[in-house]
Amino acid sequence: MEQFQVHILGCGSALPTTRHFLSSQVVNLKDKLYMIDCGEGTQLQFRAMKLNFNRLNHIFISHLHGDHCFGLPGLISTLGLLGRTSDLHVYAQPDAAKIFPFLLDYFCKELPFKVFFHSFCSTRSELIFEDHCLKVFTIPLKHRTPSAGFLFEEKAKSAHIIREMIDFYRIPVSRILAIKSGADFVTPEGETIPNVRLTKPPRPPKKYAYCSDTAYYEKITPIIEGVDLLYHEATFSNEDLARAKETYHSSARQAALIAQSAHAGKLILGHFSARYPDETVLLNEAKEIFPNTVLASERMTISMLS
Amino acid sequence: MEQFQVHILGCGSALPTTRHFLSSQVVNLKDKLYMIDCGEGTQLQFRAMKLNFNRLNHIFISHLHGDHCFGLPGLISTLGLLGRTSDLHVYAQPDAAKIFPFLLDYFCKELPFKVFFHSFCSTRSELIFEDHCLKVFTIPLKHRTPSAGFLFEEKAKSAHIIREMIDFYRIPVSRILAIKSGADFVTPEGETIPNVRLTKPPRPPKKYAYCSDTAYYEKITPIIEGVDLLYHEATFSNEDLARAKETYHSSARQAALIAQSAHAGKLILGHFSARYPDETVLLNEAKEIFPNTVLASERMTISMLS
Repeated sequence: MEQFQVHILGCGSALPTTRHFLSSQVVNLKDKLYMIDCGEGTQLQFRAMKLNFNRLNHIFISHLHGDHCFGLPGLISTLGLLGRTSDLHVYAQPDAAKIFPFLLDYFCKELPFKVFFHSFCSTRSELIFEDHCLKVFTIPLKHRTPSAGFLFEEKAKSAHIIREMIDFYRIPVSRILAIKSGADFVTPEGETIPNVRLTKPPRPPKKYAYCSDTAYYEKITPIIEGVDLLYHEATFSNEDLARAKETYHSSARQAALIAQSAHAGKLILGHFSARYPDETVLLNEAKEIFPNTVLASERMTISMLS
Repeated sequence: MEQFQVHILGCGSALPTTRHFLSSQVVNLKDKLYMIDCGEGTQLQFRAMKLNFNRLNHIFISHLHGDHCFGLPGLISTLGLLGRTSDLHVYAQPDAAKIFPFLLDYFCKELPFKVFFHSFCSTRSELIFEDHCLKVFTIPLKHRTPSAGFLFEEKAKSAHIIREMIDFYRIPVSRILAIKSGADFVTPEGETIPNVRLTKPPRPPKKYAYCSDTAYYEKITPIIEGVDLLYHEATFSNEDLARAKETYHSSARQAALIAQSAHAGKLILGHFSARYPDETVLLNEAKEIFPNTVLASERMTISMLS
């Protein structure tokens, strides 16, 4: 079955609570897992959610604050103990390539696989990863330390063949690929059958944007324009706006304003400050501006296809 | 109320499972908290168990494998966010003083308190900490990397005054301290009242030993002789003894042999390999040799006074 899901492993901010783990998510596209951020305890949540360590090959770290990356050494160490042999790729700010190899050299001397650290600059949006079904772009954010969000953009899919038409016109297998890509079919008698009679259009490709940690930053809206799903940090309520500004975080209202300007399909709020025992206050504040908003929570899975 | 307890925060081995967190314990003596080991996720368990971060001033790290210390940067970072100002002391193998300050310099630049790393050598037992009610000694262990257990030895308490006798002999307040320490009392009439009539003996001081990670190592028995409680790693069942030897770990049977030779009061098994879905096999194996054995489990609290 076709899959495109976002799993929330942790959605608390720097100070963990009894309710929230630290930042981490897993994007599951066709059973390939892409991790975003890796706070302390990520490997415990990964296992608790019964995700498959073998399907994880790429980890994207938004910025080098501990609550977004302290889980990395433990996760990598565990992958080694599980006997992994395939390469692991980590995409992060340049300093990550100094810090983590130092730790791995000390603590994971006999790792049976290679870890590659890929650096990105977070002053402009750039393509940092591509495979046959996905592109990942950075989203420059505005935080106390260089920080980037990530745009997961599914590639356009080819059209679906209408089986009955193929049979009816006795179209040879050798022509199928061309027809899927948009070609018409010319019968042996010279009649042209337009592509539109032979195929059904594919579903539009989906886009997911992860924006954390960041102050309110309007410049990101053209980059995330039209995303189906936006995860935006909402560390504070708008009543604590002064604290949000001071710490380069956003309020729930500001997250909703970004979702509105970017014409997002749906907004998930996360990265909650420990000061709110009930985050409904954040949800209500965002919904006033952007009604299709939900609160993230640990072990939640959001389908991109529903 | 007088307190001497051991809280189990995590008792799994290197590979975390859905049942076990990584190694960490907290010894609570008279509301002062002493942490032993700090695997990933320790701060989450600490909070979940409603322990008080302000009461924690000393952390003892047995050895520098990730599953015993990867939680340290996150815990220290959290203490900073909570506004701690008092010094924190970490006792560990010498390399810790190279690794962790490097991480703290990068990730916790504005820490509002000082962290002191105290190194110990783990080839002999030595006194590494002392306050007015407790001494902590290292216990040299046998592992793939230098490793030490810790002996928590409560100091001898002074005798309890018998209130009625003080009143009867009209003993002045100025003499109380001397009597508590064993002095007799001479009445104004010259009569000597022996100390034994004035006081009740204190309860004997208690001893707790933590031994993980280690291969079977008989040399530790004189150091832990007569402990009231022994936590000993039992990573494997005796059926997997070859694997235990290879990785410098112990079987449950070996843990029980150590408890028996050391005349321990009670044995807790921990540091369980992920391969045993039901650790009853380990418990039964140990009980054959040392009946007063229990399995450690997360969020368990063992009283040293019961």
